[in-house]
Amino acid sequence: MEILPYCRNVYYYETDRMDVVSHTNYIRWMEEARVSFLNKIGMSYHKIEEAGFMLPVLEVKCKYKQSLTFGDSFCIYSYITEYNGFKMTIYYEIYNKDTKSLCASAQSYHCFTDKNMKPTRINQKAPQLHDIFINAMKVTYSELK
Amino acid sequence: MEILPYCRNVYYYETDRMDVVSHTNYIRWMEEARVSFLNKIGMSYHKIEEAGFMLPVLEVKCKYKQSLTFGDSFCIYSYITEYNGFKMTIYYEIYNKDTKSLCASAQSYHCFTDKNMKPTRINQKAPQLHDIFINAMKVTYSELK
Amino acid sequence: MEILPYCRNVYYYETDRMDVVSHTNYIRWMEEARVSFLNKIGMSYHKIEEAGFMLPVLEVKCKYKQSLTFGDSFCIYSYITEYNGFKMTIYYEIYNKDTKSLCASAQSYHCFTDKNMKPTRINQKAPQLHDIFINAMKVTYSELK
Amino acid sequence: MEILPYCRNVYYYETDRMDVVSHTNYIRWMEEARVSFLNKIGMSYHKIEEAGFMLPVLEVKCKYKQSLTFGDSFCIYSYITEYNGFKMTIYYEIYNKDTKSLCASAQSYHCFTDKNMKPTRINQKAPQLHDIFINAMKVTYSELK
Repeated sequence: MEILPYCRNVYYYETDRMDVVSHTNYIRWMEEARVSFLNKIGMSYHKIEEAGFMLPVLEVKCKYKQSLTFGDSFCIYSYITEYNGFKMTIYYEIYNKDTKSLCASAQSYHCFTDKNMKPTRINQKAPQLHDIFINAMKVTYSELK
Repeated sequence: MEILPYCRNVYYYETDRMDVVSHTNYIRWMEEARVSFLNKIGMSYHKIEEAGFMLPVLEVKCKYKQSLTFGDSFCIYSYITEYNGFKMTIYYEIYNKDTKSLCASAQSYHCFTDKNMKPTRINQKAPQLHDIFINAMKVTYSELK
Repeated sequence: MEILPYCRNVYYYETDRMDVVSHTNYIRWMEEARVSFLNKIGMSYHKIEEAGFMLPVLEVKCKYKQSLTFGDSFCIYSYITEYNGFKMTIYYEIYNKDTKSLCASAQSYHCFTDKNMKPTRINQKAPQLHDIFINAMKVTYSELK
Repeated sequence: MEILPYCRNVYYYETDRMDVVSHTNYIRWMEEARVSFLNKIGMSYHKIEEAGFMLPVLEVKCKYKQSLTFGDSFCIYSYITEYNGFKMTIYYEIYNKDTKSLCASAQSYHCFTDKNMKPTRINQKAPQLHDIFINAMKVTYSELK
């Protein structure tokens, strides 16, 4: 399966007094990219919720390498790097769209739960969803970085 | 009834590339000040919700006069300027805590609704809440601006 | 001159505990739409800054009519409704992209200043920029609301 | 040296549609707590900047353990866990102020740079600042968690 990265412009209000994007916004961009990625693999948040599951964030990590500022555009490449029907890790690379330089790499760690936030094995409870995540581990990007 | 204004420091991430607080944050500060004001008059959001009501925002207005930046503190004085048991207007003055200069004046317009967002007269449905809002119109601030 | 509205999806982190977009974000969306609009008319923030001017926000107003939530997309139509070479008013209509219902109408008020924030007449100081703003008052949208 | 933790209420606009604080805000809270901590140890951002240095964020990590929501208050305990005159690691524990339960633990990684973002050894360039950071590693909190 071949998809496109998640791209957009930096917003003015996302910059801080150093004239660069506040590092705090990258965690928000990871969420934007994750939502877009899950839509593209056919597994939207709404579909997950309608199936009775939730996908809370257990942990995030982000390494900042180069800054972005107002006027820049960025692209985020998301990858499922670990998935076992119960826990999932998503890895993100954030690139400056024009210079192609890597601005940040990041990870978010998740587990599946039921509506009451009780951890749940979707490989057992929802095999059809499980298959979609398994396939999504093989996603590649059609657009070169 | 005499109360204190809502005061806090500017956060680093609230500044933008002009090295001043992004004008977009003042609308958030109005919400912070409103929550604090309602707590002080004995009418917290939780109390409003527990009584079966909601207080959505119908309109906001904000006039920007002087900028604030990282390192500054501000104080917000909130006043109920209109209230008729159904609609309510809150007026806000945002001051630089140190220089005492007026940085912005703002207004938010609200109506009371039930849980289904249907407009509701709380003077009829909840006279005891109504009295609290009537009294809150007479609030004064103990701290000089 | 015919342009397209500014459209995007609602982000998950833009919702609040009422399961709707926090009203505070609409002011940010106005800024996003303004930046996009100015780009489209050939008058980007960078171009304004390079010419030695700034365009601070003097006042904002926003009327909330219908809520948006996660999963929704919106389109913003921006119009210069007043411009005299010195002050400018931009009017915004925010539509739910799918239902076509009007979610909010808003205004931002601006003046032109020099780099030291001193109010400046760009019709006198920069006639070629002035002409662009004059023309931008006639912008229409190719996409029906 | 004994200091107080950084405490405040959750803001309404910090919640998301799950009725809990968006996980993206914890990174902002870390910045708030860091600024407060540096003020308390006598090493404000302004002092660092005036001495000709900057303290960019190289990496952040945050583990989410328990959620917080509107109406809750939290306290953040910050600790310098690594410092060598060049790089610094700050560790944060975020507690629910009322229940005393640990809601998140987090780390931010920094290095010192000059005004041009070139990495700099402050132990050599500014020994008096260096001493303050060395002493800050021994900070304890007067308020029990």
